[in-house]
Amino acid sequence: MQNAFYAQSGGVTAVINASACGVIETARRHRDRIGKVYAGRHGIIGALTEDMIDTSKESRAAISALRHTPGGAFGSARYKLAGIDKNRAQYARLIDIFRAHDIGYFFYNGGNDSMDTAQKVSEIAVQMAYPITCVGIPKTVDNDLPITDCCPGFGSAAKYIAVSTREAGLDVASMARTSTKVFVLEVMGRHAGWMAAAGGLAGEKAGDAPHVILFPEITFDRERFLAKVKSAVEKSGYCVVVVSEGVRGPDGKFLAEAGTKDAFGHAQLGGVGPVVAQMTQAAFGYKFHWAVADYLQRSARHIASKVDVEQAYAVGKAAVELALKGRNAVMPIIIRKSAKPYRWSIGEAPLSQVANKEKKLPRSFITADGFGITAACRNYLQPLIGGESYPPYVRGLPSYVTLKGVSVVKRLRTPFVV
Amino acid sequence: MQNAFYAQSGGVTAVINASACGVIETARRHRDRIGKVYAGRHGIIGALTEDMIDTSKESRAAISALRHTPGGAFGSARYKLAGIDKNRAQYARLIDIFRAHDIGYFFYNGGNDSMDTAQKVSEIAVQMAYPITCVGIPKTVDNDLPITDCCPGFGSAAKYIAVSTREAGLDVASMARTSTKVFVLEVMGRHAGWMAAAGGLAGEKAGDAPHVILFPEITFDRERFLAKVKSAVEKSGYCVVVVSEGVRGPDGKFLAEAGTKDAFGHAQLGGVGPVVAQMTQAAFGYKFHWAVADYLQRSARHIASKVDVEQAYAVGKAAVELALKGRNAVMPIIIRKSAKPYRWSIGEAPLSQVANKEKKLPRSFITADGFGITAACRNYLQPLIGGESYPPYVRGLPSYVTLKGVSVVKRLRTPFVV
Repeated sequence: MQNAFYAQSGGVTAVINASACGVIETARRHRDRIGKVYAGRHGIIGALTEDMIDTSKESRAAISALRHTPGGAFGSARYKLAGIDKNRAQYARLIDIFRAHDIGYFFYNGGNDSMDTAQKVSEIAVQMAYPITCVGIPKTVDNDLPITDCCPGFGSAAKYIAVSTREAGLDVASMARTSTKVFVLEVMGRHAGWMAAAGGLAGEKAGDAPHVILFPEITFDRERFLAKVKSAVEKSGYCVVVVSEGVRGPDGKFLAEAGTKDAFGHAQLGGVGPVVAQMTQAAFGYKFHWAVADYLQRSARHIASKVDVEQAYAVGKAAVELALKGRNAVMPIIIRKSAKPYRWSIGEAPLSQVANKEKKLPRSFITADGFGITAACRNYLQPLIGGESYPPYVRGLPSYVTLKGVSVVKRLRTPFVV
Repeated sequence: MQNAFYAQSGGVTAVINASACGVIETARRHRDRIGKVYAGRHGIIGALTEDMIDTSKESRAAISALRHTPGGAFGSARYKLAGIDKNRAQYARLIDIFRAHDIGYFFYNGGNDSMDTAQKVSEIAVQMAYPITCVGIPKTVDNDLPITDCCPGFGSAAKYIAVSTREAGLDVASMARTSTKVFVLEVMGRHAGWMAAAGGLAGEKAGDAPHVILFPEITFDRERFLAKVKSAVEKSGYCVVVVSEGVRGPDGKFLAEAGTKDAFGHAQLGGVGPVVAQMTQAAFGYKFHWAVADYLQRSARHIASKVDVEQAYAVGKAAVELALKGRNAVMPIIIRKSAKPYRWSIGEAPLSQVANKEKKLPRSFITADGFGITAACRNYLQPLIGGESYPPYVRGLPSYVTLKGVSVVKRLRTPFVV
């Protein structure tokens, strides 16, 4: 019987704690083989600095509440381990920590980079003759991991964006006669347009918002964009634009970096949302409003997708089950068995096939004019926002858990600077 | 038996249609005294241009669905009628339209300006010897109408802001070790800090987000603000700021206007959110993120306050009941009968006492240092975000109604340009 180490990595999501819940609850059902689950405080940094949380000190109710609590309950980290040849000391330190705490299972919950790290840990463990089973757990609102049909975290962000686009669209439609004609919602997704595409779900019939989607996969063309906005305003009376933060102009630069400076000459403060909104005013005099969802879109547990919550839990649970089967250097994936009705199951993929690869929105998911989503895209996205999974409320607010976070007693006296 | 005219005015809310629902359903229960309810297409402009929707053509299910549909189902307008002496023709036109369509009840659903208009219509009707009962229906996310304890629309915006602040706070807390230290959420409320104050509900114990609230009622002091942010980062590891769009500097100018220009020298595009976020980076090097909720906060029916939905319906219903009792030039108000447990009832106030007056956040609702809310403020706000009132969902998205919008046949041939 050995202990397990679990860590969260990269940008958090509304459901990454549901994966943690899946890991811990499943491990607790296998006490004969897994002792304690130690969670890294602030991700992998918690392992490197021997700063770990003993999850066995948390009540059953607290662990269960992780399922409906957004953010990263143990703290996450944007911290990429360098290549083994470049920074062997870090990997060796990990193994030292694992050895000192009798850790036989390494669960790493993150995106592309994290799967790469998990893969490397499995390699170094072999080199250092320390047996440990490494399993990645997929997580990213960007939905850009390969092989898996989708990534836990994405469905809830997608639902937030689709719902918000629909609601703001109704607002603008009411105001357009005398006031706002153009509304722009800026969403995340620096390299891939999955989240921008999710805005497209809001529109189900001709004329519905959004009228324009700007994808990072499509080079921004100012004249074509303006013509599209004008046409929407003339047809529908208003225009709703969903724009990805990652949109680039013909010069390859992010549109968000295209110009503005503050009074001191610092680079722009605003995002791409205000940039494209302002463009429509400059061209046509349209009154505009814009919103930047930023962290709200990835933390909005209050409007999480039920499917997403279930999948996030399922990959956490599957990670433990795979580890117990001795599967090493793998990641549980989501397999789409059927679209209508939506049915899915859990499979697995080798980390080596997942690490450092990025799945972009296929061109076939974007309409010919580059401003909308196709039926194929809708068929792919729709099931992922399916169902609601409301958190409990107290005094009008969602009741999210704060863990006790009892630290594991340090066994190595050696400090380590990250 | 006479017809009724109903119009929506100014910025819409997540629950203004619930008031419309209250008006129409109540009128339908009094068919012996109220014939049809005609709704102005795009507010009062619909009356001036004889462009009205016959709500009797809408099914019972469609009218019922207004209760859970955000935005303004008939269209709203930012259109303030001038003083009677300055623009008698507009008022005379209204009376002509009312006379032509046998309209004996005028229901105007809006904020300060709209109550002024309703008051004026009641005066001109007397002068022109056209008997009509004018009843205002309160609506504004700004919560700035006097006399009434609160304004329908505010509670749902407040709930959205409080929930979003709590969720984003959990996100930032996870990231702060290696990444974002300061998160800024910009909210509406150009003159009054009610919505900014609502962000304060997210924090229930020391150290909870938000750590700083910037109110329009408090002159912005850069040094004190920076010191407060630094202190929060040092204590909690991160800092969440809720800032009202209406914050002004010592020069009396909106902070949002304080500096940025785009590459072409146009005035800044961003709001105050990015301005204050950037300030913390310039001073301390903190990595920051910011969100601007904009229309999302006032259209977020998916996270509406149950209390707010009920009050919005109740003032619509009460407006019709007051009119049937012959009460003229009044507005139903919400009376707080008890805070714990929260109990409320509907009263009435003369439009003359409501029109053109603005209720700001009292100084006693803001902590001594100017950056937080007091217990008195919390006691006032908490009940207004009470309860959830979820809309129905289809395919993962809220199912909002679009009305048929059958036009009333014009009886006056005369055009009118607004």
